[in-house]
Amino acid sequence: MKYGYFDDDNREYVITDPQTPYPWINYLGNEDYFGLISNTSGGYTFYKDAKFRRLTRYRYNNVPVDTGGRYFYINDGGDIWSPGWKPVQRQLDSYECRHGMSYTKITGSVNDLEAETLFFIPGGFHGEIQKVTLRNKSKKVKKVKLFSFLEWCLWNAEDDMNNLQRNYSTGEVEVEDSVIYHKTEYKERRDHYAFYSVNRPINGFDTDRDSFIGLYNGFNNPRNVLNGESSDSIAHGWSPVASHFIEMELQPGEEQSVVFMLGYVEVDKENKWESKGVINKKPARDMISLYDTAEKVDAAFDDLKASWDSLLSSYLVESHDENLNRMVNIWNQYQCMVTFNMSRSASFFETGIGRGMGFRDSNQDLIGFVHQVPERARERILDIAATQFEDGSAYHQYQPLTKRGNDAIGGNFNDDPLWLILSTVSYIKETGDFTILDEMVPFDNDESKAKPHFDHLKASFYHVVNNLGPHGLPLIGRADWNDCLNLNCFSEDPNESFQTTNNKMGKTAESLMIAGLFVLYGKDFVELCKVLGKDEEAAEAQRHIDAMEEAVKKDGWDGEWFLRAYDYYGKKVGSDENEEGKIFIESQGFCTMAEIGKDEGLCEKALDSVKERLDSPYGIVLNNPAFTKYYIEYGEISTYPPGYKENAGIFCHNNPWVMIGETKIGRGDRAFEYYSKIAPAYLEDISELHKMEPYVYCQMIAGKDAYKPGEGKNSWLTGTAAWNYYAVTQYILGVRPEYNGLLIDPCIPTGWKGYKIKRSFRGDTYEITIDNPESLNRGVFSLILDGRKVDGNLIPYAGDGKIHSVQVIMGK
Amino acid sequence: MKYGYFDDDNREYVITDPQTPYPWINYLGNEDYFGLISNTSGGYTFYKDAKFRRLTRYRYNNVPVDTGGRYFYINDGGDIWSPGWKPVQRQLDSYECRHGMSYTKITGSVNDLEAETLFFIPGGFHGEIQKVTLRNKSKKVKKVKLFSFLEWCLWNAEDDMNNLQRNYSTGEVEVEDSVIYHKTEYKERRDHYAFYSVNRPINGFDTDRDSFIGLYNGFNNPRNVLNGESSDSIAHGWSPVASHFIEMELQPGEEQSVVFMLGYVEVDKENKWESKGVINKKPARDMISLYDTAEKVDAAFDDLKASWDSLLSSYLVESHDENLNRMVNIWNQYQCMVTFNMSRSASFFETGIGRGMGFRDSNQDLIGFVHQVPERARERILDIAATQFEDGSAYHQYQPLTKRGNDAIGGNFNDDPLWLILSTVSYIKETGDFTILDEMVPFDNDESKAKPHFDHLKASFYHVVNNLGPHGLPLIGRADWNDCLNLNCFSEDPNESFQTTNNKMGKTAESLMIAGLFVLYGKDFVELCKVLGKDEEAAEAQRHIDAMEEAVKKDGWDGEWFLRAYDYYGKKVGSDENEEGKIFIESQGFCTMAEIGKDEGLCEKALDSVKERLDSPYGIVLNNPAFTKYYIEYGEISTYPPGYKENAGIFCHNNPWVMIGETKIGRGDRAFEYYSKIAPAYLEDISELHKMEPYVYCQMIAGKDAYKPGEGKNSWLTGTAAWNYYAVTQYILGVRPEYNGLLIDPCIPTGWKGYKIKRSFRGDTYEITIDNPESLNRGVFSLILDGRKVDGNLIPYAGDGKIHSVQVIMGK
Repeated sequence: MKYGYFDDDNREYVITDPQTPYPWINYLGNEDYFGLISNTSGGYTFYKDAKFRRLTRYRYNNVPVDTGGRYFYINDGGDIWSPGWKPVQRQLDSYECRHGMSYTKITGSVNDLEAETLFFIPGGFHGEIQKVTLRNKSKKVKKVKLFSFLEWCLWNAEDDMNNLQRNYSTGEVEVEDSVIYHKTEYKERRDHYAFYSVNRPINGFDTDRDSFIGLYNGFNNPRNVLNGESSDSIAHGWSPVASHFIEMELQPGEEQSVVFMLGYVEVDKENKWESKGVINKKPARDMISLYDTAEKVDAAFDDLKASWDSLLSSYLVESHDENLNRMVNIWNQYQCMVTFNMSRSASFFETGIGRGMGFRDSNQDLIGFVHQVPERARERILDIAATQFEDGSAYHQYQPLTKRGNDAIGGNFNDDPLWLILSTVSYIKETGDFTILDEMVPFDNDESKAKPHFDHLKASFYHVVNNLGPHGLPLIGRADWNDCLNLNCFSEDPNESFQTTNNKMGKTAESLMIAGLFVLYGKDFVELCKVLGKDEEAAEAQRHIDAMEEAVKKDGWDGEWFLRAYDYYGKKVGSDENEEGKIFIESQGFCTMAEIGKDEGLCEKALDSVKERLDSPYGIVLNNPAFTKYYIEYGEISTYPPGYKENAGIFCHNNPWVMIGETKIGRGDRAFEYYSKIAPAYLEDISELHKMEPYVYCQMIAGKDAYKPGEGKNSWLTGTAAWNYYAVTQYILGVRPEYNGLLIDPCIPTGWKGYKIKRSFRGDTYEITIDNPESLNRGVFSLILDGRKVDGNLIPYAGDGKIHSVQVIMGK
Repeated sequence: MKYGYFDDDNREYVITDPQTPYPWINYLGNEDYFGLISNTSGGYTFYKDAKFRRLTRYRYNNVPVDTGGRYFYINDGGDIWSPGWKPVQRQLDSYECRHGMSYTKITGSVNDLEAETLFFIPGGFHGEIQKVTLRNKSKKVKKVKLFSFLEWCLWNAEDDMNNLQRNYSTGEVEVEDSVIYHKTEYKERRDHYAFYSVNRPINGFDTDRDSFIGLYNGFNNPRNVLNGESSDSIAHGWSPVASHFIEMELQPGEEQSVVFMLGYVEVDKENKWESKGVINKKPARDMISLYDTAEKVDAAFDDLKASWDSLLSSYLVESHDENLNRMVNIWNQYQCMVTFNMSRSASFFETGIGRGMGFRDSNQDLIGFVHQVPERARERILDIAATQFEDGSAYHQYQPLTKRGNDAIGGNFNDDPLWLILSTVSYIKETGDFTILDEMVPFDNDESKAKPHFDHLKASFYHVVNNLGPHGLPLIGRADWNDCLNLNCFSEDPNESFQTTNNKMGKTAESLMIAGLFVLYGKDFVELCKVLGKDEEAAEAQRHIDAMEEAVKKDGWDGEWFLRAYDYYGKKVGSDENEEGKIFIESQGFCTMAEIGKDEGLCEKALDSVKERLDSPYGIVLNNPAFTKYYIEYGEISTYPPGYKENAGIFCHNNPWVMIGETKIGRGDRAFEYYSKIAPAYLEDISELHKMEPYVYCQMIAGKDAYKPGEGKNSWLTGTAAWNYYAVTQYILGVRPEYNGLLIDPCIPTGWKGYKIKRSFRGDTYEITIDNPESLNRGVFSLILDGRKVDGNLIPYAGDGKIHSVQVIMGK
């Protein structure tokens, strides 16, 4: 069952039923100021940090779901409704929510009155525009009472939830003209406030929640909306809110637009006050004046759309498959930009108060957006590298505001360092900018320990070499990519974190996943050294890679697939010898991407085993059989019920590893089959089961052992976005940046006749047509660049800023 | 305006309007298993620790207020309602909530169907009984559909709110017969589960929230209740709930009772499972069988009442003032017991996830309950003392589960140590048990550092002596009792805690409040030494006390009142020289309780200044004038808006210090005036303004500078309970335990003709009649014990376990 449709021309998903199986959300803002908004206008806003600078309050996991947001109420002659259906939930005559690129437009109508609400944040602006347009489609004059509503968060979102004995006394507001100012704690250490304005005179307002809603009423039936009046209340503590009350008269056929703005202002300490106790409102007035008419708002909205035209223009595919086109050209790139902005902090599953930026996460996310914003990718790489330790290891996360590493969620995850090679190499291949390697980058944020960035990559590489276990395989440390496979943490206390408890750290537990990672990105390191002319460095590194490949083949192969690990006791994990968890996806993915034992057929065997044992109608599960009891020697993975999360769930992040592995042995049909099983556009028809948005990836889909296989969870903030984008664009569609140009290496289903790619690359543009006359999976027969044949399958970088035409014929 | 009335005979407050100005709550349970319940049956339950073992989910600061609880729904032929009005909010024909001693009974009726719901936790039992009685008062047969409902918390209340990407996958239940089992995480590290049972066959059940309520419905209109059916749903992740569905037929005039039980079970690791994946239910079945009939429940309820008869029998007053009687005999003692159990952890303002037991809080709370449960008081004192450091200083809090100190909310509060003298002396005077002083008690929980408890008291005393400032007054450290007067923390960052930031620790800032505290409890220390025959110890201590008194008189007196402190720069705080915060309550309270400069008239002057500058119609404010801007050198106190919390709010905790100070100079009218201004029973008529329960104290009432003076906040968990009980019983009513007996020292309003006290004391009982023929405030003219005149005003302890009659005539 579908709840809407894709409008590709407008780059929108259009929701036509407000009662989606779960709130379907969108993100507003792209730089410092952000908002989350659901299809019924629930959600919240923050400045830079969703924990420390939360502007509006939101309650997760509430009943009903998704309670609290930017709400508009209409009282049309006593008939009360909201354009987004919620919170009032009065049946609408029509409803539509358009989630676009950084904007959302929700329109509802009742009794021939239509209300359109447009939400967006102009580029570089610290405020959210809400344009409300009322249209009287009846033949009578309508006198309408419009109420805006939002609830202020008292800045620190965590304290806001918990420290009520303080918070209930601190709320402070001011109201001047049509602007409501939220100045809680401004008197003291905060040099910032928020405001909510509207571009016309108001008939009243409310700032005290209980006055507006009533203690025992809800968002669905605020007392003042029911009564068609406002209290002009000034909040003193308790819960400050902001509501404008506007009476409007609309002639038959008339349309009126009202512009609201929710803004954030920082003020110099010296200029905080207009007069004693009265805040300096000039910065707010300046912001308001920028968008105080519908025309100015429309112009800003056009600018926003134009900026997305530009951001999304680097890689465009034109194929017979509209789901593929919309994923690659629009939604997957869009999701990559959101994960760049949010990391794992704020979604409808991540509350925004717990997690900083992950070392591992952020390096991987980068492969999904480096082509869109290369200069921001460069900054991100250097920020991450600066938190690394001299021995190559890393804090597992760092804070975006301070850019310093911390061990709040542990350290000593031995895969972490290698991801820095992936991100750096991806950046250089995309941009050709080798100067990043010469940047002086601190270790552990200590400037006195700065070294050229290249040395960080070397430290990453040798961190593995210096931490090998009994089989010559990489020690896993606290965990590798799978945070929940905790081989050195034997925990019996339910209040311990598996990520920070560390009571068995030994020198035994080894990871085959890191082994594959090492061979794969080690080769990248070697290639980079060669490009830089560091041949000895390259040769030395190659010897370690060769040794690792041998170790994997000798002690990492279980007969039909790659082992997952050796545990604390030196026992095999992910072996046919095990009763449960016989096979895991991660080592199959990385060892086949690294092509370990490819010539001996190990890759093909391993991938066939994946197909046989891990594949399901909804994607590839993480392990099989699922764990049905707690294994103290494995840790968190075995705490989940079978089929969920790391315990045999379809952890979408790692599915593209297998897709790429399949392309490495040329099996394009299977690679694309895996792609289309989890790419959300393909799941639109089963939205009732999938539950999550059909336009973005989930972290996890319930696996075949689960109660309801195919049910998605934790949409939006997942490394899945970057990895699937990387897999489909570079390895399936096969247009891949290399140091010297674009490699053309499609690995596609045999049924495809061909497709076109438009690729911007370091200022040039390549219009590539790929034909597949022989119904092959893989193989480039000929490549013609601007009318001239090129040997091999690399389009050499021109560097002339021009448009180049490329004709590719697949063949043997 | 009143919302109910006191039923003193039953020791109940009876609420007759469900829409109280704020949820009015009660506590269930007295030992390990607890529940909070509001007058509309909102609230939650936990085992021992409100953070780590939360059984049911609760959302603080929700809209509507108080959402989530133990709900019963009645579908009576399509008419849907709840006995507690909420959550359905259908208008009831009758409503009554009786909050009693550890139980709550809520009764509602609609259309001649009455539903009575009784909630309590039997003594020592780890389960809550819910007895639902339906009475058909109509003349027709009624077919009623009854639904129970609660929502499970996934044990760790903090994680439950925040870690949704995990929690949404972990929920697991089992259902067998009429019992719903919540076994989330039982598979792994939890050796405990919860259950919800009912003592009759059911027609169906639900354990999946969305199945029962519907994603977009609320607690007020669950889909299955509306439809009169259940889904027999089994939760797999998301939000597990428990709902029984029972169809009942009631003849005209018939009454039926149904017994529900919400229980907690711990299981040995070896006996966790009945069979693979099936939990061991025997312990639950055993619990259920104890109370599986209405008769068994009624017997347990009688036992509970009897236990409160006993707990409340130690001190009974009989006076002309029914508010005084009900406060002293029932509600104040009851609140003291709740603060003993909860400290500051779980109320409707304290979320239960943040705070452990306070060193200072717990010592003070003890003076409110030592007469009720002396053996538990003894244990508490020793637990607290064991967290002390060898130099006398203390962790500011410790965890009740581990009993270890931690510095999560700071340390180095220089008042902390002295409170240990107060609690210990109070304990010995109440019990005569000097053996506590010989108990070997560790420092910093290190058994190797154990010393006799007496040495802890000495360390407390000398911690002040060893930490004096430039004026010979006590250094304040991080803060004294007023956590928000932060004289060594100059904070500019809004994300810093004033309690843990410590960037200016100097040797200048001194506290007059600690000076008073030192003199007062120092004298107790000296007296104790003398009783123990440690005369040299006593003399040495007395010299320090004398010096302190001189220092206060020399540098701590501002002319009309006691200074509050010297700040980091050595400037006066709480002086007429200051522009704001000229006078503070704490130093007036403690210096007058300690009688510093009493002979010179300083106490009288100081207390007159309190009357003139700090008193208000709703109590005594903390300071005056209120701070209107942020003083970085004063810290958090100046962050609050004027009139709230520590910034000139009526912080009720310190009002009794002034009451006692007034009794020290014999002004009984004024002492009692202050008492009756904040004692909640006297505020019943202004409940609309006061908002909070009229049967328990608040932490804070808005002061005269506030927007709404008299508005209460943060009821229940406050040191106010202990201090007011101590002040009214020992210093106003004036029956006070001393080492050798009961001192009779009333200090009452002149208008009182007399009153009676019945006091149990170390096994004896004293029936004391006090007559005031000359309309005095103070003074005992004669005291007749069992017919024989006694010199002075001390009733010597008999120790014969008998009832003794005491006749007291006041006079000069």
